Amino acid sequence: MAKKLSRGVAVVGVGMSKFGAFPGKSSRDLFVEAYQELRQSVQKGFNPQEIEAFYMGNFSSDQFENQAHLAPIVASWVGLSPVASMRIEDACASGGVALRQAVLAVASGQCDVVLAGGLEKMTDLPAARVTDTLALAADTMFEVPAGFTFPGFYASMASAYLDEYGADGEALLRVAIKNHENGALNEKAQFGQRISDVMASKKAKAAQKGQPVPEWADEIAFLKDGKANPMIAWPLRLFDCSPVSDGAAAVLLVSADLAERYSDHPIFIIGSGQASDGALAERESLTSVPSAARAAAQAYEMAGVTAQDIDFAEVHDCFTIAEIMAVEDLGFFPRGEGWKAELEGKTARNGEKPVNTSGGLKSKGHPVGASGIAQVVEMWKQLNGLAGARQLQPQPKLGLTHNVGGTGQTCVVHIFERRS
Amino acid sequence: MAKKLSRGVAVVGVGMSKFGAFPGKSSRDLFVEAYQELRQSVQKGFNPQEIEAFYMGNFSSDQFENQAHLAPIVASWVGLSPVASMRIEDACASGGVALRQAVLAVASGQCDVVLAGGLEKMTDLPAARVTDTLALAADTMFEVPAGFTFPGFYASMASAYLDEYGADGEALLRVAIKNHENGALNEKAQFGQRISDVMASKKAKAAQKGQPVPEWADEIAFLKDGKANPMIAWPLRLFDCSPVSDGAAAVLLVSADLAERYSDHPIFIIGSGQASDGALAERESLTSVPSAARAAAQAYEMAGVTAQDIDFAEVHDCFTIAEIMAVEDLGFFPRGEGWKAELEGKTARNGEKPVNTSGGLKSKGHPVGASGIAQVVEMWKQLNGLAGARQLQPQPKLGLTHNVGGTGQTCVVHIFERRS
Repeated sequence: MAKKLSRGVAVVGVGMSKFGAFPGKSSRDLFVEAYQELRQSVQKGFNPQEIEAFYMGNFSSDQFENQAHLAPIVASWVGLSPVASMRIEDACASGGVALRQAVLAVASGQCDVVLAGGLEKMTDLPAARVTDTLALAADTMFEVPAGFTFPGFYASMASAYLDEYGADGEALLRVAIKNHENGALNEKAQFGQRISDVMASKKAKAAQKGQPVPEWADEIAFLKDGKANPMIAWPLRLFDCSPVSDGAAAVLLVSADLAERYSDHPIFIIGSGQASDGALAERESLTSVPSAARAAAQAYEMAGVTAQDIDFAEVHDCFTIAEIMAVEDLGFFPRGEGWKAELEGKTARNGEKPVNTSGGLKSKGHPVGASGIAQVVEMWKQLNGLAGARQLQPQPKLGLTHNVGGTGQTCVVHIFERRS
Repeated sequence: MAKKLSRGVAVVGVGMSKFGAFPGKSSRDLFVEAYQELRQSVQKGFNPQEIEAFYMGNFSSDQFENQAHLAPIVASWVGLSPVASMRIEDACASGGVALRQAVLAVASGQCDVVLAGGLEKMTDLPAARVTDTLALAADTMFEVPAGFTFPGFYASMASAYLDEYGADGEALLRVAIKNHENGALNEKAQFGQRISDVMASKKAKAAQKGQPVPEWADEIAFLKDGKANPMIAWPLRLFDCSPVSDGAAAVLLVSADLAERYSDHPIFIIGSGQASDGALAERESLTSVPSAARAAAQAYEMAGVTAQDIDFAEVHDCFTIAEIMAVEDLGFFPRGEGWKAELEGKTARNGEKPVNTSGGLKSKGHPVGASGIAQVVEMWKQLNGLAGARQLQPQPKLGLTHNVGGTGQTCVVHIFERRS
């Protein structure tokens, strides 16, 4: 099933908008920001007319912006008509699946130069409608009428995980602390604050108002304070959840043999995998995501590498528990030991397997259709030594992205390599 | 831009649900009907586990059925998990673009066996909301606030066309008459009636009620009667418009070298083209669809054939004017002469270039995400001599499909060949 690509595929440029809440900006405006940055990132430049196809990940512009058929509209907006343009939708994996289709288009020889993008404009809707719209990614015939929205799904997985492995719930909080730590070093992140910054700011505010200043021994104590970090769906609290975000991202792919025409420091996509699954209730276990393990197995086989070879990864931490399950599904840590790895700092920037150096969905933000493409932006930066204060040392050679739709009805995994 | 496919692609099976209004059936139920028929159509059978990817065209299940992330859900529903599954959205061209991605997946060598499907369940919404939902396929930032919905867009194109070429409006009615004539011979069509059947039924009803029986000299007189065929947006009347429909369709693609393992009568996809465009108001002319001409040029070049070589075509007649523009954009008739060809019967089953032998969107129905895939079903039937009472004689060798999104922000064209 996981076959070799017919020819190699290189990334020669990337760009993303800032992630956050941007009233007054539409998704096409945000895409312009991403695309402009991409254009500047292509070292030797390129002519936009060289682009032969545009694959655009988007979850539900229909609901969020009252606009469907968004791919040709966005293409026209940035001056790319008449390029073949299409929207790919697989819920929160839309960006990653769009990337995969772009990879296939180049690998097939059908196109030499392809643009993959992702975008979502979520903050125009009231919060309750955003939750309901996201719930459309679950099975609305069975799962949603039973009362589930996404915090509930992931809370079910988290409580099952804690129970099955006797895990310490503090591991969840450690994921949040680490990803905020990383995101604070990413100027594009929605949250530029460490958890300790949030604590300090709350203290300062209380003092300013003449209220009693809260005493938190450390970040963990802060995150366990039900007032500072309210419960959303047990055991998940506010800081376990990724935010509602606006944002866009874009990457330019070319066939490997043409890469040096565009850049002296391309990165190469050497593995790609994708798998689907049914509703959460149909699975044998709640504590892993089978589509993730399958997609990863395909990508590893295609790339001819193993989990041990991967230097760092961007994984789909829509909730903190999702990162813990991901590092197991991807084979980074044994089944049932992901929580320990998080507690022990193994996924920190200076750990043995850095995860979500960008801040992840948790801190960078999660404009759902853009997330799978924004992960590639971090691949580009880390592999090329361009990640600034959050740069991994030594400069990594192999990175992996993991993008999940729904509770794992879709998962897509890609592997990236630096050769220079 | 239009490159050769890396390896050949064959269709070895097709299926579709009946098109129509089916209260109580969801899109996944309709897809089951299409998929079951497909399974039976594969002459030598196949194991569903051979399917390596599922490309699903769907316009807006988000709005129509309150369900996004539909591809893995449908895959699970028919027992195909964990197959890589994705929804492709390009408005009413979603099905055709899904087909194109499936073609690429096989041509690239990434997959040997791929399922392409399309589905839409439109009739659960009140009619006014259906019109508003379809309008999301236009630019809702500029076009829709100006008062346009799709009948208005195509009415603008029709009035510009009639004016620019001094065309006889009767040509529009002739498209409707022909396509209803064809659809009456298609058991899957939403409308199984010729226009003359509709006339006769109206007369019978009047007589039954003791009302004066209308006297119409012929079908044209009937269609010009403002009471029998009310004006929707001048010059388009009710019978110029395709209906609101529910339906699903599916096709199984394999690499050409594996085709005989599945069937002794595969058909081959030898050309594929796709192009995009901006909003209607940005175009130089309202009387042609540039994306259609571009997509066709790509497909002809890839296939190494010309418009003259094509024996028959299924074109996107969402409105009667759309078929007239299509037969020009595709090069079947010179610019400005499509209306004459329709008047003169050149697109009839016994004409020089039969168009929409299935009944087209006009009579067969237009469940928007399914239409581009259902066109392939007609290719299969006509090329294999399986089209029953509407079978073309002599049995054709080369067919073409033309699937449009919006007013032509997307167009996708494929060319099919019988070799046996």
